[in-house]
Amino acid sequence: MHDPEFDVLAIGNAIVDVMAPASDELISKLGMTRGGMMLIDDDQAESFYAAMGPAREISGGSAANTLAGLAALGAKCGFIGQVAQDQLGEVFTHDIRAGGIAFETPSRPGDPSTARCLIFVTPDGQRTMNTYLGASQFLPPEALDEGTIAKAAVLYLEGYLWDPEEPRAAMRKAIAAARGAGRKVAFTLSDAFVIDRHGDDFRAMIDAGDIDILFANENELAALTGKNAFEDGIAALEDKLPVLVVTRSEKGAVAVAGGARAEVPAEPIAKVVDTTGAGDLFAAGFLFGHVRGQSLEQCLKLGAICASEIISHFGARPEADLKALIAERVA
Amino acid sequence: MHDPEFDVLAIGNAIVDVMAPASDELISKLGMTRGGMMLIDDDQAESFYAAMGPAREISGGSAANTLAGLAALGAKCGFIGQVAQDQLGEVFTHDIRAGGIAFETPSRPGDPSTARCLIFVTPDGQRTMNTYLGASQFLPPEALDEGTIAKAAVLYLEGYLWDPEEPRAAMRKAIAAARGAGRKVAFTLSDAFVIDRHGDDFRAMIDAGDIDILFANENELAALTGKNAFEDGIAALEDKLPVLVVTRSEKGAVAVAGGARAEVPAEPIAKVVDTTGAGDLFAAGFLFGHVRGQSLEQCLKLGAICASEIISHFGARPEADLKALIAERVA
Repeated sequence: MHDPEFDVLAIGNAIVDVMAPASDELISKLGMTRGGMMLIDDDQAESFYAAMGPAREISGGSAANTLAGLAALGAKCGFIGQVAQDQLGEVFTHDIRAGGIAFETPSRPGDPSTARCLIFVTPDGQRTMNTYLGASQFLPPEALDEGTIAKAAVLYLEGYLWDPEEPRAAMRKAIAAARGAGRKVAFTLSDAFVIDRHGDDFRAMIDAGDIDILFANENELAALTGKNAFEDGIAALEDKLPVLVVTRSEKGAVAVAGGARAEVPAEPIAKVVDTTGAGDLFAAGFLFGHVRGQSLEQCLKLGAICASEIISHFGARPEADLKALIAERVA
Repeated sequence: MHDPEFDVLAIGNAIVDVMAPASDELISKLGMTRGGMMLIDDDQAESFYAAMGPAREISGGSAANTLAGLAALGAKCGFIGQVAQDQLGEVFTHDIRAGGIAFETPSRPGDPSTARCLIFVTPDGQRTMNTYLGASQFLPPEALDEGTIAKAAVLYLEGYLWDPEEPRAAMRKAIAAARGAGRKVAFTLSDAFVIDRHGDDFRAMIDAGDIDILFANENELAALTGKNAFEDGIAALEDKLPVLVVTRSEKGAVAVAGGARAEVPAEPIAKVVDTTGAGDLFAAGFLFGHVRGQSLEQCLKLGAICASEIISHFGARPEADLKALIAERVA
């Protein structure tokens, strides 16, 4: 086995976020679940956009955000995801490449357009997401090159992308390629709705030993294990996964690995502006520590610092110099 | 003459800003003039974009930014400008309408695409702008409805748009319509390069009494009058214009009107993040006071408050509640 060319190669949705401040009243009026993620079609995308205030566009996508954090920290990364041949596809492509991330998936001609996530951010910083998947759900298995997957120390997969059929097939192929090459597979559960629909797949993959590092938040842990008590959820999974990382918003995060357990509080922050990308950037910090061989505590600390940066401003791509931030906060 | 339906109707470039932090070294390497505005073609747009870091897209355009500020303050506004039938055209259209501004100019099919301004923001907050005018320069005189112009108390024109031929013809037609209806004409000089190319037009319009309110910064004042000393520049124009407003960055602003003169210091601000839109939002605050019949001092103060908000964050569209900000800062 050669030394890996990439620290992390990720497969995820290629999305541009469209973000605007919104009142709690607007969220209710539009029938959205505060803090949730909902898949929407063309017509809903149009009507929700019309109801939205003046917005800004910032590249997003869960796994792509994680890579943006990893690359900012100095990791070598590659991304696989599907954009359309349109202006927002160019925006996504520019932003991920400008972050130093290899991205070679050819754009897809014709309809549908590049994926957009309409994000309504309430005054408390909570984000309510409405995703029009567009081209992103048509990532074909052929877009994956098994040779490239074998070159990455960690293959990182986004649960959101398990929902549409073509990318799911692509991700199954990728997992097999990574395992065949002796690489690690990291998986983020993304949202409870994904577990509602595909929990059996995920539990089977965990039982088969196909996942080395699993990222979940408290809700996702409960949905996956059927255990409402946090510690019961941890207990149900900890022996089945080499590394389990559970984020708990303002309560910090917990990781268990090989019988060891570590916890970290949330990093202090002046004001939560927008929670979009908190989990994605936590994963970035954790994975950076992991590929650099740091302790479980250190990995969690890096995750917490990256998450605290991302929630201090609009958008799920880092604005501050993450390397400098970590140098400052880590003894 | 009926009561006006709009406080301010503006004609301007319909642009989406593409903004990213940049080092001073990058600005030099790309051959840009720090703090300047340069018109670029397709090829330059592509190469500058490739050299730019991860960016965000926020609607811009000088006069459109001014209207966004005016509308946020509670003024009734309309905008006339040209977008293409593409995704960025939809973004511009959404954002201006979502701000409560009437915008009915039909989008233009085919090439070129919607205008973009590639803005490199250095660590001191200074913006260096590179504008690809695209569809914006093809605003046809037919897009103007003289009846609509007669319905606005103030017609506001952006000097940038004087450069391309079709919009220049449209603006001349608009000035005639406004004057014919007994409405006021406000004009912003936009940039010294515009004066280099069209200074004779502007001086002739001022001499003919076609401009009621002129906005300039110090450089533009010098370029227009040929006087390098600030007071000489003021003296050269003050008797020819009902209202002259000159912004001086961190030195505040000066206004002269009918022999009276007022000055205001810059508003204090914690950190200058991005100066894009400072002049545009100064004009918004000033015009809001003006259409509400406030004193020259008060108009300047409103301008300074709006400018201070816009330079405290990325993007040239207001993020804070300008009404609340003014209620808080104005006795």
